[in-house]
Amino acid sequence: MPPIPSSLHVLHPRLSHYLKPNFVSLSYFSISPRKFPLSRQLIPINPRTLFSVASALSPTENGSGGGGGRSGALAGPPVLENVMQKIDVNPPKGTRDFPPEEMRLRNWLFHNFREVSQLFGFEEVDYPVLESEALFIRKAGEEIRDQLYCFDDRGNRRVALRPELTPSLARLVIQKGKSLSLPLKWFAIGQCWRYERMTRGRRREHYQWNMDIIGVPEVTAEAELISSIVTFFKRIGISASDVGFKVNSRKVLQEILRSYSISENLFAKVCVIIDKIEKIPVDEIKKELKSVGMSQEAVDELLEVLSIKSLSKLEGRIQHVAGRLLVFSYFYAKHSQGILWHMVTVECLTRATEILGGSGEAVADLKQLFSLAEKFGYSEWIQFDASVVRGLAYYTGIVFEGFDRAGKLRAICGGGRYDRLLSTFGGDDLPACGFGFGDAVIIELLKDKGILPELSPQVENIVCALDHDLQGAAATVAIILREKGQTVDLVLESKPLKWVFKRAVRINAQRLILVGNTEWKKGMVSVKILASGEQSEIKLDELE
Amino acid sequence: MPPIPSSLHVLHPRLSHYLKPNFVSLSYFSISPRKFPLSRQLIPINPRTLFSVASALSPTENGSGGGGGRSGALAGPPVLENVMQKIDVNPPKGTRDFPPEEMRLRNWLFHNFREVSQLFGFEEVDYPVLESEALFIRKAGEEIRDQLYCFDDRGNRRVALRPELTPSLARLVIQKGKSLSLPLKWFAIGQCWRYERMTRGRRREHYQWNMDIIGVPEVTAEAELISSIVTFFKRIGISASDVGFKVNSRKVLQEILRSYSISENLFAKVCVIIDKIEKIPVDEIKKELKSVGMSQEAVDELLEVLSIKSLSKLEGRIQHVAGRLLVFSYFYAKHSQGILWHMVTVECLTRATEILGGSGEAVADLKQLFSLAEKFGYSEWIQFDASVVRGLAYYTGIVFEGFDRAGKLRAICGGGRYDRLLSTFGGDDLPACGFGFGDAVIIELLKDKGILPELSPQVENIVCALDHDLQGAAATVAIILREKGQTVDLVLESKPLKWVFKRAVRINAQRLILVGNTEWKKGMVSVKILASGEQSEIKLDELE
Repeated sequence: MPPIPSSLHVLHPRLSHYLKPNFVSLSYFSISPRKFPLSRQLIPINPRTLFSVASALSPTENGSGGGGGRSGALAGPPVLENVMQKIDVNPPKGTRDFPPEEMRLRNWLFHNFREVSQLFGFEEVDYPVLESEALFIRKAGEEIRDQLYCFDDRGNRRVALRPELTPSLARLVIQKGKSLSLPLKWFAIGQCWRYERMTRGRRREHYQWNMDIIGVPEVTAEAELISSIVTFFKRIGISASDVGFKVNSRKVLQEILRSYSISENLFAKVCVIIDKIEKIPVDEIKKELKSVGMSQEAVDELLEVLSIKSLSKLEGRIQHVAGRLLVFSYFYAKHSQGILWHMVTVECLTRATEILGGSGEAVADLKQLFSLAEKFGYSEWIQFDASVVRGLAYYTGIVFEGFDRAGKLRAICGGGRYDRLLSTFGGDDLPACGFGFGDAVIIELLKDKGILPELSPQVENIVCALDHDLQGAAATVAIILREKGQTVDLVLESKPLKWVFKRAVRINAQRLILVGNTEWKKGMVSVKILASGEQSEIKLDELE
Repeated sequence: MPPIPSSLHVLHPRLSHYLKPNFVSLSYFSISPRKFPLSRQLIPINPRTLFSVASALSPTENGSGGGGGRSGALAGPPVLENVMQKIDVNPPKGTRDFPPEEMRLRNWLFHNFREVSQLFGFEEVDYPVLESEALFIRKAGEEIRDQLYCFDDRGNRRVALRPELTPSLARLVIQKGKSLSLPLKWFAIGQCWRYERMTRGRRREHYQWNMDIIGVPEVTAEAELISSIVTFFKRIGISASDVGFKVNSRKVLQEILRSYSISENLFAKVCVIIDKIEKIPVDEIKKELKSVGMSQEAVDELLEVLSIKSLSKLEGRIQHVAGRLLVFSYFYAKHSQGILWHMVTVECLTRATEILGGSGEAVADLKQLFSLAEKFGYSEWIQFDASVVRGLAYYTGIVFEGFDRAGKLRAICGGGRYDRLLSTFGGDDLPACGFGFGDAVIIELLKDKGILPELSPQVENIVCALDHDLQGAAATVAIILREKGQTVDLVLESKPLKWVFKRAVRINAQRLILVGNTEWKKGMVSVKILASGEQSEIKLDELE
């Protein structure tokens, strides 16, 4: 709409809306309010139009009920072109609002995350929720990277809302380089985004608590991490009969897969497939494993190995595999003809040794973890499970996963060692391990158990003036209390006492402080303890 | 790369990388490790290749330094196609990492935001950082909407990273509707995004503290909001000599503009332009004002009015404007011929009355605010300034802005009344006011003043095993202390004592607890108070 000629507005700017049908582009009368140039010849207008203007301008129309202008700036009769349809009042699909009751729960959860992290001497960090997409692209067919919330920003940079926090951690560690004093013990609580198909209870954003230890190659680090999660569970009322940790080492799997001719390039990809066991039908798993080049028998054997739930059985299986190679080498040695056959024999021996060594290391790690679990006091929480590999490509050693023993929920948390992540970003590798713990499943678990905390608003005082003229006095009282560290809900309008009492109940106030004329003149206020009903007059400077 | 035939991997999966040049798609020898089918006829291989394989497979090569695979999963010689260039280790342009030292500062700031909000009885809320773009589109030429971080999500929804929190608040209030008990007193601390050209100190994200009161039409609400900001300033060491608030009411401007024939449609747009005064040259301002249809004289008069810094001068100006209209009406009444002229006279009178009324209301609001400021005890912090209108389209009444008195920084915070925002989203309007307070300028101010707090890591205890075998014992000690609420940094590796002392200093530990063999056998540990150097042996169950 082109600007309306100012002359049309002289009487009243709103006139333009009403007069326009009759007066489009006609000068009604042109008076500059500053210069008082007298009436030029006027074009006649339709008196009925002017009447309707007059009534439209009546002051009662200027109340608060009528506004609908998109600019949201002024009262007045609605300008049709500016009236908006009601917007979708829900947050975008898959995201959440946090009204006060939800926010109290979130704060309670985060507070526990923070307190536990601090008990363990971890320092808090954070990274941008928006990162370069390159940080999250890995060639392993992970679910996570197919669900990136990515876009080109206005500067044509390819960016993504972070689906997890670990890559940002790695980036920051590389950036800081030698200036960091190892080991780092860092924690973060950040929102992560995944664009996934919406199913029951699955959202597109969640908050994740991460704890990471950078610079410790020993399994004490993993033991410490699991200890912190156990400490967290205990604090919020979850016991070892509700929740357990399945523990495994990817090194075991790596050696087993080696013996079944799985290229190391494919290792991460196979882990990602295996992670879907119990999530998709076993036939699907088999198909996917075959599609990356595994033979039918390798797949069958693999699934059998994955079903192992005891460390000693695992050791047996490893010895079996290595033994087979030793038989090979014996055979080759016996039938060897010349240098070529000799080398094949040596290679078989080397490989058997590597498998025993590699798996042996893995088994030793796991045994140490179980031994430390005793010292930390959480033995009953953990168990070996060869099928746990976690769905992220970058894990290299011990992996673990928190699960509900009732078997109703998805994994509660998961983590592991990722000693090779930094080099995938071009940095120097550092031993590293960590975990992620989402804010969704744990709440479901607490709900199922019926131990979700009931968190009500908590304001210690409600202060109310008994007379409109005493609003300022009530403000003074509120400020005195607040300066003493007391939380105060100040009633900002004149309201009946009944209303004030109702509000006091809603906010769980302990005291109602009334500022009335008689007391105020004496420099006093009336204080009512709401639990007991006890009421007294207290001097302003004695108010605590 | 197609999957390598499994037979090629039997000796060692890595062989494939080395053998491929000679053996592409040839079966080297095909042995199933499970079935021991004996040697088929072999194709001869180049012994030199096999030698290089043997050396490549030596265990020393299998260390931690060589990895470069993109999958980040396993050690091994780098596979060239997977070696990545070093990624950009900086966060995306205009965004920040929060390493521990920065995070401590952020937490300190947010802690103060939270504590003040709670002192005032406000409840915390939050909304998604990603919202529908429609929520932020207003027809007022605001800077904020030209800088939206917006994109189409995978479901082709037009979304945007929020540039501010208020529209989400409005959305949630409409959504909750009648279920809410008014007045709402809500606060939020959320990250907001603006894609703006990068200049010194300007970033593309910042955290914003918001406090809003919904449901209170009286100016007590604005007074309470400013009081909370003053309380915050005082807590962090900022005084009225550092910072002030400029206060105005958009209602004043609205009436002044009316008399200069500015359509109400353009009011918000004019406010957005006026907000740039002191940010861009005055000639630019004049040009922009003219471009929306204001005459030269109106622009000049407007700028003169905006320079008013006292309420009484403002009242004078308003009376002058209304007086002019009264002269009109007198003139028209005198020269009136018939109903038409009579109506013009009436209209002039009505309008003069409205201006006096509207502005009178505005002046009364401002006077009440100044009076309440006295009761709240922050009179010396606030001053009237007609030029302050704030850059958001939706303000309708009192607006205010926190500024540094040294005049070096941008606005520290800003807010005002926005009684018409809800209807622009199709909801029923509710009286509302609030403010936004960013995390950037305040930090600059604290730096300039030299009162940025020095926040060091704080871990109460450092626990260290003197012998590798005592790692588990040290873990037990750590857990005992943590269960008693003590924060503990557990040394997870065998480290020289010198290293441990250095770390103790870095984390500001108060006690060093050493777990040595002799003491441990007696169920004791050695406790050193680091400040005094005092050392003692303490029984495990007496450890506090």
